[in-house]
Amino acid sequence: MVENNIHPIFDRMQSRSDKERQLGQRGATIWFTGLSGSGKSTIAIALEERLSREGILCRILDGDNIRTGINRGLGFSEEDRRENIRRIAEVCKLFTDTGIVTLAAFVSPTNELRELAREIIGDEDFIEVYVSTPLEECERRDVKGLYAKARRGEIRDFTGITSPFEVPVKPTLTIDTTNRDIESCVDEVYNVIIEKIRLTK
Amino acid sequence: MVENNIHPIFDRMQSRSDKERQLGQRGATIWFTGLSGSGKSTIAIALEERLSREGILCRILDGDNIRTGINRGLGFSEEDRRENIRRIAEVCKLFTDTGIVTLAAFVSPTNELRELAREIIGDEDFIEVYVSTPLEECERRDVKGLYAKARRGEIRDFTGITSPFEVPVKPTLTIDTTNRDIESCVDEVYNVIIEKIRLTK
Repeated sequence: MVENNIHPIFDRMQSRSDKERQLGQRGATIWFTGLSGSGKSTIAIALEERLSREGILCRILDGDNIRTGINRGLGFSEEDRRENIRRIAEVCKLFTDTGIVTLAAFVSPTNELRELAREIIGDEDFIEVYVSTPLEECERRDVKGLYAKARRGEIRDFTGITSPFEVPVKPTLTIDTTNRDIESCVDEVYNVIIEKIRLTK
Repeated sequence: MVENNIHPIFDRMQSRSDKERQLGQRGATIWFTGLSGSGKSTIAIALEERLSREGILCRILDGDNIRTGINRGLGFSEEDRRENIRRIAEVCKLFTDTGIVTLAAFVSPTNELRELAREIIGDEDFIEVYVSTPLEECERRDVKGLYAKARRGEIRDFTGITSPFEVPVKPTLTIDTTNRDIESCVDEVYNVIIEKIRLTK
């Protein structure tokens, strides 16, 4: 492989805009923040279903595919929580850079953590959706039984119970899912994001 | 968001095969291993160009986009090298699971490291390409000036000079790029992988 045999076109990776053109969409990260049980993953899943029906390629990242994978071994110290979000954001960035609509659903309870994510992903690619369902409703649902455990003192530093959740300062969108059906929640997010991910030809 | 309002179709993320159908391709990881300067990234870049011309979506992962991102802060201890490959493999797995052809170009000098990657990514999705260009040729090219530095003792544990490279036990393909043009190298990889990533309708 003599160097001057390498045609210039082979000299660089396909760029993000090459991939966006190929996919016919723009990459972005939609970052869902909110209490456990607020509806982050439920909205992300329904949004993915809707976007994929329109031919838009998405990738959901949530605790299920991150905690046992890239973030295996991280604990709940402040340092580890930060590293947890840092790695998630770096993965979001790689997917966004591939032109994919990345749906990240993580409690991410502090402004500092969310700003870290925004900084890594880049302001113009970071859409922050605050799922603001109040604690009482999240605890009433208690889908995973975590609130009950936290109340019994079996979970340390559980956000909303023994650890604070800071309301986002200026989210792109705020949604309280109490007494709303999923379709109307998804409509709301869809309407905000669709112009950002549609590729103007 | 009353639970029984959630239609079953919203209950789960889109599966890998949903995404593969959407993209019209199968996900896989092509793992290029070999000495620094052997031609791993060059082949990956040219292969990506070729595949993308056929409408196949790829993602290259290499030192440039990994070391300063998800693997920032890792050093060169044995533990850190293992963690480096572990995280890369977890990212490959996420991309492969999204239906994307993932091209990973990393020295990954030992069988243990490559087996770790294979284990995480999954045997059927892991295509190992050993770029076997000999040390003499890699050192002659010395594109980044790293061999000269290593010979001067300015880099500790440089693979091929002060640290061993273990020849892969049973790679899917072995390519020596010495005196070959890039097109013929890419053809060879292409012919091996295309049947694995083509979606049979």
